[in-house]
Formats: sequence, structure tokens, C-alpha cells
Amino acid sequence: MERIPILRMGNLLLVTIQVDMHDRLAMTLQDDLTARIVKDKARGVLIDISALDIVDSFIGRMISNTAAMAKILDASTVVVGMQPAVAITLVELGLKLEGVKTALNVEQGIKLLQRRED
Amino acid sequence: MERIPILRMGNLLLVTIQVDMHDRLAMTLQDDLTARIVKDKARGVLIDISALDIVDSFIGRMISNTAAMAKILDASTVVVGMQPAVAITLVELGLKLEGVKTALNVEQGIKLLQRRED
Repeated sequence: MERIPILRMGNLLLVTIQVDMHDRLAMTLQDDLTARIVKDKARGVLIDISALDIVDSFIGRMISNTAAMAKILDASTVVVGMQPAVAITLVELGLKLEGVKTALNVEQGIKLLQRRED
Repeated sequence: MERIPILRMGNLLLVTIQVDMHDRLAMTLQDDLTARIVKDKARGVLIDISALDIVDSFIGRMISNTAAMAKILDASTVVVGMQPAVAITLVELGLKLEGVKTALNVEQGIKLLQRRED
């Protein structure tokens, strides 16, 4: 599979990361996502990482960069579904998901984004 | 990755299939999904297959079986995001997604499931 699907829900976009990220896939995702934010006039992006057991510096940077791109296009990014072990590793490795908000799950993430709209 | 994440949205569950299915992954998904339907008291299941370029008889049967299991647990299943080429192939191969409703995208699928609730 060469693309990560982007699902639209109202004025939000949902991306579920399930596969190991590599350079090209990350770039394709960023291209697709920025295009979709503009096309769908999205105000928020939810990135679900519940399937990821490991978030290394590459994925962390990819998520931060994606959030930065979304922000320029006036969309907020929320990372949802982070596993406890991933949170521990991020802190232990000193990795920061800069410019990214987090929420426990998709529902909480949607609420967070909708609050920001009000 | 050994699991396909199941996302909860209200009383609906969303599954995005992005990776090649094999026996064990399909069984894990069915176990997880039936458990989640009961735990979350879900009334509907959305299966997004927009990332799939090919739906063969194995995946078709897996989707039908999953829908049948969900139905016994009183949850309706809607397949969303089918690519045009997949629809063509399904018909040409004579594969039927029995017991499964389809919708163009997640939003339409949510509307379809909510109509059934009313």
C-alpha cells in the first residue's frame, strides 16, 4: 500500500497510521494531507497512532512537521490514541511533539478541536 | 504491526484497513471488533477500504463474516471508501459482499447508520 488514507468527518480530517513510516510514505502523506486541508476546507486534523508500538525521532519529526504545515493552512492537529509505552519512551528519549496537541482517543480529540472552533 | 486499530466515535466503531490481510490478522480483527462492539455498546461498524487497490475473495469473505458477527451482536456494518476499480473487480469476479451495506465515504456511512438508528 503506497498511501495512508485520509478520512473526512465534517470539517475534520482523520489519519490512522498503521504501517511503518518511511521517507516516501511520509512525504506522500504530507502532500495528500495539505491538499485535502485546502480542498475540504478542514479546520482540524486528527492523527491516530494507537497502532504504533514505537514512535522514534523520525515519526516524531514527521508528525511535528505535518502539524506545522497544517497550522500554516489554519488547521489544528491533535494526536490521539498514544499508547502508554509510547508516552514513556517519548519522555525518556527527550522527544517532543512540538506544536502538536494530544488527546486520549478520537472522541476526545474531536471535542478538543470543536472547542477550539467555538 | 499486528493489530488493526478500532476507533470509537459515539456509538460507532471505525476500522481502516490499510495493510495486506492475512489469516491471523483477520482473526485478530474479528476478535477485537466483536469484543469492542460489546464493550462499547456499539450500534454500527464502519470499515474503510479506501486504501485497498484490490479486494480478493479472502478479503471479501472476511468483510462478510465480520458483518455477520456484528449483526448477531446487533450492530450494522457499512463498508466505505471503495475505489471504483475495486467495485468493477468485485462485479467482474462475481464476488458479493453479502450482508454488507456500502457508502461512498465515512460521512455518508455515518449518516446511513444514524438513519437506521432512528
